Amino acid sequence: MYEILNKINGPEDVKKLNNEELEVLASDIRDALFNRLTKFGGHFGPNFGMVEAEIAMHYVFNSPVDKFVFDVSHQSYPHKIITGRRLGYTDENHFHEDSGYTNPDESEHDFFNVGHTSTSISLASGLAKARDLKGDEENIIAVIGDGSLSGGEALEGLDFVGSELNSNFIIIVNDNEQAIAENHGGLYKNLAELRATNGQASNNLFKAMGLDYIYEPNGNDIQRMIKVLQSVKDINHPVVVHTNTVKGKGYKLAEENREAWHWSVPFDKETGKPTISFGSGEDYTSLTAKYIMEKAKKDSNFVVITPAMPGTGGLNPTLRAELGKQYIDVGIAEEHAIAMASGIAKNGGKPLVVTNATFMQRAYDQISQDVCINNNAITIVLNYSSFDGLTDVTHLGIFGISAFSNIPNLIVLSPSSKEEYLNMLDWSVDQKEHPVLILMPGNEVTDRPADKEYGTVKYKVEQSGEKVAILALGDFYQRGEILAKEIESKLGFKPTLVNPRYANGLDKDLLIKLADSHKVILTLEDGILNGGFGEKVASFLGIKDVKVKNYGLNREFYDRYNPEELLDELGITSEKIINDIKDLV
Amino acid sequence: MYEILNKINGPEDVKKLNNEELEVLASDIRDALFNRLTKFGGHFGPNFGMVEAEIAMHYVFNSPVDKFVFDVSHQSYPHKIITGRRLGYTDENHFHEDSGYTNPDESEHDFFNVGHTSTSISLASGLAKARDLKGDEENIIAVIGDGSLSGGEALEGLDFVGSELNSNFIIIVNDNEQAIAENHGGLYKNLAELRATNGQASNNLFKAMGLDYIYEPNGNDIQRMIKVLQSVKDINHPVVVHTNTVKGKGYKLAEENREAWHWSVPFDKETGKPTISFGSGEDYTSLTAKYIMEKAKKDSNFVVITPAMPGTGGLNPTLRAELGKQYIDVGIAEEHAIAMASGIAKNGGKPLVVTNATFMQRAYDQISQDVCINNNAITIVLNYSSFDGLTDVTHLGIFGISAFSNIPNLIVLSPSSKEEYLNMLDWSVDQKEHPVLILMPGNEVTDRPADKEYGTVKYKVEQSGEKVAILALGDFYQRGEILAKEIESKLGFKPTLVNPRYANGLDKDLLIKLADSHKVILTLEDGILNGGFGEKVASFLGIKDVKVKNYGLNREFYDRYNPEELLDELGITSEKIINDIKDLV
Repeated sequence: MYEILNKINGPEDVKKLNNEELEVLASDIRDALFNRLTKFGGHFGPNFGMVEAEIAMHYVFNSPVDKFVFDVSHQSYPHKIITGRRLGYTDENHFHEDSGYTNPDESEHDFFNVGHTSTSISLASGLAKARDLKGDEENIIAVIGDGSLSGGEALEGLDFVGSELNSNFIIIVNDNEQAIAENHGGLYKNLAELRATNGQASNNLFKAMGLDYIYEPNGNDIQRMIKVLQSVKDINHPVVVHTNTVKGKGYKLAEENREAWHWSVPFDKETGKPTISFGSGEDYTSLTAKYIMEKAKKDSNFVVITPAMPGTGGLNPTLRAELGKQYIDVGIAEEHAIAMASGIAKNGGKPLVVTNATFMQRAYDQISQDVCINNNAITIVLNYSSFDGLTDVTHLGIFGISAFSNIPNLIVLSPSSKEEYLNMLDWSVDQKEHPVLILMPGNEVTDRPADKEYGTVKYKVEQSGEKVAILALGDFYQRGEILAKEIESKLGFKPTLVNPRYANGLDKDLLIKLADSHKVILTLEDGILNGGFGEKVASFLGIKDVKVKNYGLNREFYDRYNPEELLDELGITSEKIINDIKDLV
Repeated sequence: MYEILNKINGPEDVKKLNNEELEVLASDIRDALFNRLTKFGGHFGPNFGMVEAEIAMHYVFNSPVDKFVFDVSHQSYPHKIITGRRLGYTDENHFHEDSGYTNPDESEHDFFNVGHTSTSISLASGLAKARDLKGDEENIIAVIGDGSLSGGEALEGLDFVGSELNSNFIIIVNDNEQAIAENHGGLYKNLAELRATNGQASNNLFKAMGLDYIYEPNGNDIQRMIKVLQSVKDINHPVVVHTNTVKGKGYKLAEENREAWHWSVPFDKETGKPTISFGSGEDYTSLTAKYIMEKAKKDSNFVVITPAMPGTGGLNPTLRAELGKQYIDVGIAEEHAIAMASGIAKNGGKPLVVTNATFMQRAYDQISQDVCINNNAITIVLNYSSFDGLTDVTHLGIFGISAFSNIPNLIVLSPSSKEEYLNMLDWSVDQKEHPVLILMPGNEVTDRPADKEYGTVKYKVEQSGEKVAILALGDFYQRGEILAKEIESKLGFKPTLVNPRYANGLDKDLLIKLADSHKVILTLEDGILNGGFGEKVASFLGIKDVKVKNYGLNREFYDRYNPEELLDELGITSEKIINDIKDLV
């Protein structure tokens, strides 16, 4: 086991290997990947496909003087294994030391903490520009997958590099014919033509952007990759090395079902079956899929749009096929997704955009300008918008309220139960007055009766009480419920409990009533406080004779935290809040 | 005067004209443009170049059933003149009725309120998708300038349309070989090759994206444009009509200096000289240019980056040439600009990104992910970040604090005087610890002594007093000064006056001291309250025995307002604030 890999403590050790040993190294790296991924989970297909290419990269170039920038960096595990971090893969006790992405805190061979797509060309071009300013001469290498090429930042980067960077720059396009789901977009037709013609097809996208271009058909052949990389090493201008790899290479199940094996939970290697159990009941993702399928059948003007994240709406390949022309995957292209949705709404369609909260940040300006200035009634549903969904620093859901809720005309809704979520979806998709963003709950599904209309900001008083009013928003509503009960049992009075529902609107009449009849108003929200819900309440009540205390997360990039421990640190537990109340009442 | 134009009340009247009359119409439209622009100012070059093309569009297509979407829409004046709005150009009394952009509130021939670039393809593709869902059959036409093509949203849109929209869709690429300044990016080499080869060059960018393509070399020839548009009318798939026009066509001065005549203040037609006078003293834009030129000379690692907005940093062609490789115009590509800056900082360079505040919204995710997670020390300077700079709804500067100041790790600075602004620039560019965003003041230049270091959040108490503490941020500091004097003279006590400087950090020690020693704390900020500075102060002091009142703008898309009247409406005048204070003290 790990015969060669155990000797690899850095790239210099790779350079010493002969051809045969390099092949053994590839096999060892796959074993190490299996070891981590079967037990710990993580990105599967992207890493298995890039083993040979990354060995070749380290064989040819001189990292960290020569600098690699990996797009998304979910395919950088072979690189991480080679650059002194093999224990994070071969030894269970070290798994936690190694993040799932490149990370400059881990190694001098990593230059950026990356997790969003389409950034590598631009980031690397900056390294190159600084190199040129300083008069240095190292190689700068950006790695990007075909799925990431459709993102605006990547295309802007290609265009820039194609004329404005007249010095060494190497872009490795890892073409595995797949995003997470299948690819969408005209450029993929071009990549297919280039693959079919061994790189000779006319109307080469990269050449059209002003770049030099080389095609290597077998990106899983170490010797061929070494040869092509040697041919571009120290090149004096930007060049694209387009190579074809097999996503999930070396594991038959993954090669055959590339979407399912993009990312994996812990699994059994023999059967491919997960080794952790999932709740068998419904969750908000499956509720979303159910809503979408039913609505699409009833209403031919309803259309679902996703920027390459169908899974966030629970849309598997079967459901997508069933939706037909009522389903649009735009590829990784959030800006386009939002602007197109605005156009659809303007011309009488009913668009629902669904993706992961953190990726929607890419479309901030489109939400503001293309949608909200025009007040076109699109619905955006953001999955993973909770503090306890994804905890990697690059994928946090805690910025959703802060980022989007201050854009004019946008109604941001935070549902707290099943009926509320579904009613909000129903109302939002059918109405023609407002753009609406709905934060999909991350909690287990619970249910309470809910209103049907959400056009006017009204908070819902779920329990009337005294002294303390708790405004518990969205996914934190259930924490508010628990807090209310604990206050009653520990402090001996029944507090008021409010379900605000609107993350960015003030129910001024109610707030004034609450301020006049309570001593303390508490707000609880599932996200950072800065720019969030509670601050607005505090500001509105700033001149009233009532204490206001906002509970939420800090303006901070948390990384791989334990969610409940974090809340405890921040004082957002019933016990600590009750202590605060004692001081205030 | 306006012999033909006076008969044009809608597109149907254009269709009745013979060839000769169409030429007279073009001349009449230019006269109307001169009439408005000499007296009122506005976008010059883009409109003069598109007169013939837009006449042809209305001659061939059937607006508003067929739908035109103009990118930026700063070139849509001929369209607006044709579609019933000629008085907004021919008659001074009607100038104010007509915005400088397309506007659905003005006409059924306009579909979107647009002002940012690179959006037309995506917006129009939405109109097309909805058409297809409904089974309608109209033509959808997107107009986009070459300068806008480099923006990520436009490239995402091209890529999408190139494979996913298999129905009627026409993209008119108005290639006038120019953005506001000169074009930058590899795709412009491709456009030049296509122009040089009458559209026959290999590696056609549009074909590489999967699109059909036609080239028409003379976009200023009505008959030729009619012919090419007739050839694509009712086409059953997406097609690009690439045509070459002359920016500023019909006015020699504008044809010869396309950058200067992109937009114009009121001017004398004979001489081309402005008819309004400018302050002759320094302003913050010229101070920025001066700082940049001096810093570049002293420090070879310093580099200025702009996404096609050199004017926002006062960088005219002479200064740009002088900066040499220390100046990078990335073209319209904010995402790339920010990510590249992060890479430059990571590799030891000192990048300063300068642009217009409203356009920086395009790079929200890049500021968060590419820069701030990595804590790379880039400096961003935003011009037009004040409520009284640009008042068109699409170009408002009032969202800067709200949009960016809640991103972790980013220090957002609001300078209030010349020395403070220059010291902030100096400190920020040289330090290696933090990404920094500086809101360039829009006020007249004033001066006061200022600190040199800005790494730790400390507000500056400029005047110690009693009862009321005024926290007046950035461009509103001077209003705070006036307010303090008025309070002293009208209410008979001297209030405390604080210059917070940090738009997104809390000086907790000072705030607690102020809360303990004053009855009222007022915050004044130049932007919307939501997600802004004042709310953070109110939240922090929510449990203290002090009244807090936040003054700022509402979460609203204001449009073409009188700035001082707006403040009066919002109660942000010394008189009204003093009335509020009387109730509170």
